[in-house]
Amino acid sequence: MGDLGKLAERLREFAAAREWEHYHTPKNLVMALAGEVGELVAEFQWLTAEEAASIMDDPQAGRRVRAEIGDVVAYLVRLADVLGIDLLEAAEAKLAESERRYDPARYRGVYRKAPPLE
Amino acid sequence: MGDLGKLAERLREFAAAREWEHYHTPKNLVMALAGEVGELVAEFQWLTAEEAASIMDDPQAGRRVRAEIGDVVAYLVRLADVLGIDLLEAAEAKLAESERRYDPARYRGVYRKAPPLE
Amino acid sequence: MGDLGKLAERLREFAAAREWEHYHTPKNLVMALAGEVGELVAEFQWLTAEEAASIMDDPQAGRRVRAEIGDVVAYLVRLADVLGIDLLEAAEAKLAESERRYDPARYRGVYRKAPPLE
Amino acid sequence: MGDLGKLAERLREFAAAREWEHYHTPKNLVMALAGEVGELVAEFQWLTAEEAASIMDDPQAGRRVRAEIGDVVAYLVRLADVLGIDLLEAAEAKLAESERRYDPARYRGVYRKAPPLE
Repeated sequence: MGDLGKLAERLREFAAAREWEHYHTPKNLVMALAGEVGELVAEFQWLTAEEAASIMDDPQAGRRVRAEIGDVVAYLVRLADVLGIDLLEAAEAKLAESERRYDPARYRGVYRKAPPLE
Repeated sequence: MGDLGKLAERLREFAAAREWEHYHTPKNLVMALAGEVGELVAEFQWLTAEEAASIMDDPQAGRRVRAEIGDVVAYLVRLADVLGIDLLEAAEAKLAESERRYDPARYRGVYRKAPPLE
Repeated sequence: MGDLGKLAERLREFAAAREWEHYHTPKNLVMALAGEVGELVAEFQWLTAEEAASIMDDPQAGRRVRAEIGDVVAYLVRLADVLGIDLLEAAEAKLAESERRYDPARYRGVYRKAPPLE
Repeated sequence: MGDLGKLAERLREFAAAREWEHYHTPKNLVMALAGEVGELVAEFQWLTAEEAASIMDDPQAGRRVRAEIGDVVAYLVRLADVLGIDLLEAAEAKLAESERRYDPARYRGVYRKAPPLE
């Protein structure tokens, strides 16, 4: 079992040991994920593009960003586990679709939304 | 290199092949992540707790959820790569902290916010 | 000038008095809005549907919800002011469109996404 | 009744006419709000600060931003109505608190998080 699988297992055990599984419904977990992403966004909201790019050079800010990222990952892994979704497969499927939709020759240097694939 | 590392590399190549790296600043990626989590939340917003729990039994809804989760993972992996953060380590650090903060004996069955660790 | 206009003016003065206007770019304000909505979502994430419906009966939780709603309104009004968007007109336009898209006779009791208007 | 009150009433009638009130629980509405804010964020995510500042000069992008803002306002007004919260009072209370917390003399030109009020 890979590292994401081990993390999913640790999160299952964390919830089971505290009898918190009843909180971990898909609706609740998707809300928890949104809440943590909101906290992550807040770490960047007042920064200029340059300050944001070097945020990890600031020990305090870097620590907070790492903590929020950790919370986001935990809820995402827990949600995927409860839904029975393989996170890596889901991402790879979307990436393969984007690789077909966005021909490098026609989208070089500039982003614009491409039509969906047939 | 683990699977998350391979995904990060494919995302790097995807951006490089289209000369899209200039779009992938931390501020932009954190916004993209928030946008995709919003789309994921929208898949669940009108569902009852029961409908949400069995959403993956519906082929169309399940396909949409899997696609949105894929987008969330992709932007999270790309953001972490750009910031130089190890996603698994960040999650494990937060989980270890939560394991210490939430003594199973004192938090059995009910969640309430615990004081931060000293 | 209506109440929303007075609030927009107080927010302008709040920013001007502290020379914080440079922080209030559209990108930053939209991120701040997302961050505050995340905090609002977090107040509800572990509640059952029943607990959520009666959250305002709990003095402490009610106070927190009111505070988060206040933050969301403030950033939304500030963002709209900076962009030159009339919040009520925007909402009324969308509502009028929804009233046409969702014929009550065909959508009674059940929600499903309707095709966009021609 | 003020304009926000009229909008709240139109939203109540919109829901009642379609027998959609059962969808408009606080949990669902707070998720819908998060979903629409996500769509709003997405309109800005790939823009530079300058492009974002002039987004309303672009007819197509401006139309989309106005539409997303309209959706955000509608769900916020509906949520506040269901919870029994006065949006303007909530915002004014938070602003008054921020005016006391952030002494212009000590926070001129630079934002840093102030301690909460006693």
